[in-house]
Amino acid sequence: MVIREATAEDWRAIWLILKQEGTAGETLTWDPTRTEARARAGWMRELPGRTIVAVDDDGRVIGSANTQPIHPGPGAHVANAGFVVQPARRGEGVGRALCRHVLEQARADGYRAMQFNAVVETNTPAVRLWRSFGFQILTTVPEAFRHATYGYVGLHIMYRAL
Amino acid sequence: MVIREATAEDWRAIWLILKQEGTAGETLTWDPTRTEARARAGWMRELPGRTIVAVDDDGRVIGSANTQPIHPGPGAHVANAGFVVQPARRGEGVGRALCRHVLEQARADGYRAMQFNAVVETNTPAVRLWRSFGFQILTTVPEAFRHATYGYVGLHIMYRAL
Repeated sequence: MVIREATAEDWRAIWLILKQEGTAGETLTWDPTRTEARARAGWMRELPGRTIVAVDDDGRVIGSANTQPIHPGPGAHVANAGFVVQPARRGEGVGRALCRHVLEQARADGYRAMQFNAVVETNTPAVRLWRSFGFQILTTVPEAFRHATYGYVGLHIMYRAL
Repeated sequence: MVIREATAEDWRAIWLILKQEGTAGETLTWDPTRTEARARAGWMRELPGRTIVAVDDDGRVIGSANTQPIHPGPGAHVANAGFVVQPARRGEGVGRALCRHVLEQARADGYRAMQFNAVVETNTPAVRLWRSFGFQILTTVPEAFRHATYGYVGLHIMYRAL
């Protein structure tokens, strides 16, 4: 597996992963009616934002992540990040490799902290993974995510200094 | 004072207030290099978002607020809101009138809760106002705002059910 910056040619594969994972309704705050153009504008960041992909040994995109300042101006020293992994490729360390890269790049870019705003509390593999990277749960916004199976569940806001 | 939906003609006055308040660097996560076009796109919401203005008895715009879903899709039942008041018109109840309207409209629009992501902890008049409307501080993101006078201060994440 290789982690590298995403290119325009990667978008189609990222879009298919996002759509599949988003439509499942379990982990992403994803609008199923979103057009591909809007999804692309939201995921493929311009500087100072960044978008990366995880590529397997056969050259297939199996995951992606992006970062950007969580707020403009006086809040721009805290990074936000989003992650998605091809559902069929879970358990291969894709999320872990993406997160390691994102944290290193964010430090190099001069961010002082990283904050996630919408970690679905029932997505225990993700919560465990972010915790293993030193993220703590600052709070859980009650019933903030309408889960396809469980109904209203909380969204963790997770944070770590860099 | 009247609270009503913002129109295209109101934008110029809103922009001047935003720029003045944003440049002060004390209350808004505002990028001082932001162009007017980008600021307009960010403030003047399209449905399901809404933008309102407070207009004084002489017909002058003295404040504005907007709402939108805080997340897409399965997170869209929680509203986010932003507020700005003409600095020279503080203490006249403009923020209070805007907040009352925003809460009533959000209930009518079917939101289940409202969440603010970036209430500067040193902005005590705002914190007191939101508390008086039933908002609680879920957490304070440490050093998430670089205040023009105080340096790094926290950002409250505030919340109330509707």
